[in-house]
Amino acid sequence: MEIASLALKLHKQHKGKIALKNKVPINDANDLSIYYTPGVAEPCKEIAKDKELVYEYTSKSNWVAVVTNGTAVLGLGNIGAYGSLPVMEGKAVLFKEFGGVDAFPICINSNDVEEIVKVIKLIEPSFGGINLEDIGAPACFEIEERLIEELDIPVFHDDQHGTAVVVLAALINSLRLVNKKISDVKIVINGAGAAGIAVSKLLIKYGAQNVIICDRLGSIYDGRKEDMNKYKQEIAKITNKEFLRGSVHDVIKGADVFIGLSVANVLDEKDIKNMAKDAIVMAMANPIPEIMPDRAKKAGARIVCTGRSDFSNQVNNVLAFPGIFRGALDVRARRITDEMKIAAAEAIAKIADENLSEDYIIPKAFDRRTSFEVALAVAKKAIEQGIAKLYMSEGELQRKISLMLNM
Amino acid sequence: MEIASLALKLHKQHKGKIALKNKVPINDANDLSIYYTPGVAEPCKEIAKDKELVYEYTSKSNWVAVVTNGTAVLGLGNIGAYGSLPVMEGKAVLFKEFGGVDAFPICINSNDVEEIVKVIKLIEPSFGGINLEDIGAPACFEIEERLIEELDIPVFHDDQHGTAVVVLAALINSLRLVNKKISDVKIVINGAGAAGIAVSKLLIKYGAQNVIICDRLGSIYDGRKEDMNKYKQEIAKITNKEFLRGSVHDVIKGADVFIGLSVANVLDEKDIKNMAKDAIVMAMANPIPEIMPDRAKKAGARIVCTGRSDFSNQVNNVLAFPGIFRGALDVRARRITDEMKIAAAEAIAKIADENLSEDYIIPKAFDRRTSFEVALAVAKKAIEQGIAKLYMSEGELQRKISLMLNM
Repeated sequence: MEIASLALKLHKQHKGKIALKNKVPINDANDLSIYYTPGVAEPCKEIAKDKELVYEYTSKSNWVAVVTNGTAVLGLGNIGAYGSLPVMEGKAVLFKEFGGVDAFPICINSNDVEEIVKVIKLIEPSFGGINLEDIGAPACFEIEERLIEELDIPVFHDDQHGTAVVVLAALINSLRLVNKKISDVKIVINGAGAAGIAVSKLLIKYGAQNVIICDRLGSIYDGRKEDMNKYKQEIAKITNKEFLRGSVHDVIKGADVFIGLSVANVLDEKDIKNMAKDAIVMAMANPIPEIMPDRAKKAGARIVCTGRSDFSNQVNNVLAFPGIFRGALDVRARRITDEMKIAAAEAIAKIADENLSEDYIIPKAFDRRTSFEVALAVAKKAIEQGIAKLYMSEGELQRKISLMLNM
Repeated sequence: MEIASLALKLHKQHKGKIALKNKVPINDANDLSIYYTPGVAEPCKEIAKDKELVYEYTSKSNWVAVVTNGTAVLGLGNIGAYGSLPVMEGKAVLFKEFGGVDAFPICINSNDVEEIVKVIKLIEPSFGGINLEDIGAPACFEIEERLIEELDIPVFHDDQHGTAVVVLAALINSLRLVNKKISDVKIVINGAGAAGIAVSKLLIKYGAQNVIICDRLGSIYDGRKEDMNKYKQEIAKITNKEFLRGSVHDVIKGADVFIGLSVANVLDEKDIKNMAKDAIVMAMANPIPEIMPDRAKKAGARIVCTGRSDFSNQVNNVLAFPGIFRGALDVRARRITDEMKIAAAEAIAKIADENLSEDYIIPKAFDRRTSFEVALAVAKKAIEQGIAKLYMSEGELQRKISLMLNM
């Protein structure tokens, strides 16, 4: 049976993908009196006296809300809050499987930024973190900014930052293999949505000097008038310092790195041939990449990554978000900083480092070391930056993360 | 170790009481491609075309939001959204254990009716039902009314209706034992909050003709001026037809039934002596009843119920809400009607019926037959009333409920 019909059949058969699990036994009246009335009044009273104790006596510390409004779901576009639920349940399943994180889908039936921010803020008591998902740009930027500002728990838009972390990991190893420095290479990014903008920012933060970002109208440059918004304007100020104009086909000439976060078949062999020697091509449009790996290779690309599991070098967010939240939750980081994202990317890169080859740039999705190493790196960085509410030695951290990953 | 310190210790040790459970295996890339990308796009597209299919392809149909704002938690009063979380997690545990219902605590950090209604409406896509919990009166009435009006899934305020159902169940069997008819007896209810008002309404719906409800100022009657609100005014019109005035000690004289939903030690032996022969005393204040069972018995009460598990005849909401939601969810009832509540009460009463005695008026909390029989009765009634979206034969219903209770 092909995947599409199998997916329908199995989603129906299981009636969705997530359920509740009780962590405590309820076998007799004594259990009831401890975990419900009258015993439950004790932790309630303690928390009422000191709000911080909600992290001691409840599951808040390990629950993450996977929040969407369904406006930019996969490549399907705006399919609404109900239509998005299978993806959000899937994300919750991955959080649990890869990160030991208890995640719950909150599908908000609204397109209004104010309303969405308000809902998330008001239900925050139940959650230790917020993962934004599949919310269209530019609303996603505003919602994320507001929540980071107004909440004291980590807020992370995976389409932006999860993608940026894994792309950076792949780029670190790719550049190592071709022996180039990030500060020297010309990087062309196609796609100026949530992912494209976040990737640009993180690469620049990591030392990239020459990034050019393109949208449907071609390269974005400071001063461009057509189809701009606040976020494109911001990114225009730190990219494309030579004010290159033209289509992606024009600006890709001489580039060392192409990062596609756009649509199928945007590139052809000629574009790859026009790139610099040892070209690195990340063609991550889903399900059809910007150029198929065999064509890119034939045209001279040294390294090709895609978003697909049926080719080597899959750039898969599952390498990042479970470990990032695991690490952030385990030290109660107040937010997830760029430095923590870079630490995550370096941890991912390091796992593939020892067997590095053109066909093994980043770890496989099911490499169980990844979440542990990412969580550890993220937690350590949070402590180092002074934004963790819990402080632990490296040994304690390792034990806690191991324990939580296996819960 | 006493319950209070044991409860603190165990809540801390388990770090709360609830976790996520994946219903599907994620063992390899094939699983990922079915339950996440690209396969998950198929159920998304189907739901985007027909919203109803969200019940086929997701877990929505079995998730209930346990919603509070923490303003009336147990007997602790307004301890806020954070402080309420241990109780809400406990409720979720009971939903799962006794009803096979996946429940998630939504603790809303707001005291504003409009805000609370809005939040619940906007996150409704993730849930098959809404259980309101520990929200103070009269806000709880307004919130419930609005949500029943504006949502298409069952909304149930357990403090009102769960209590009313179990009280009615206990009353049905008590009256049978003493051979009195509900239409003939004088019933005094102490407490005019959420529970007291809901109990009054349901008893009247079931045929009670002579109900007098008291608050701190004494009996409520049509025309009373002091300390009234819209809801007390409404209830005054259908209770206390003789316009009795006075304290609970005055109006209890000659009463066949006392129902206490108020505070400790309100009654003394004299009050019980003043009641009619074969007096039925439900003293459900927690943890200390309106009068202790031994004192009530000594003063002549024939039947005494309390809210406590260490006495016989515990009036425990766990007999009702798990089965009520189980039944409502399994036929996709659009709401939970008075007739469904009465069917639930009769089902509970029937379980204890065969061994009925002064000390066995209602089933024990751990009698596993209860949720099944309640769910079946509720589901059948919903179908009969034409408010179920799924229609099943009784055999199909029995199989479905059994299956769901054991999940």
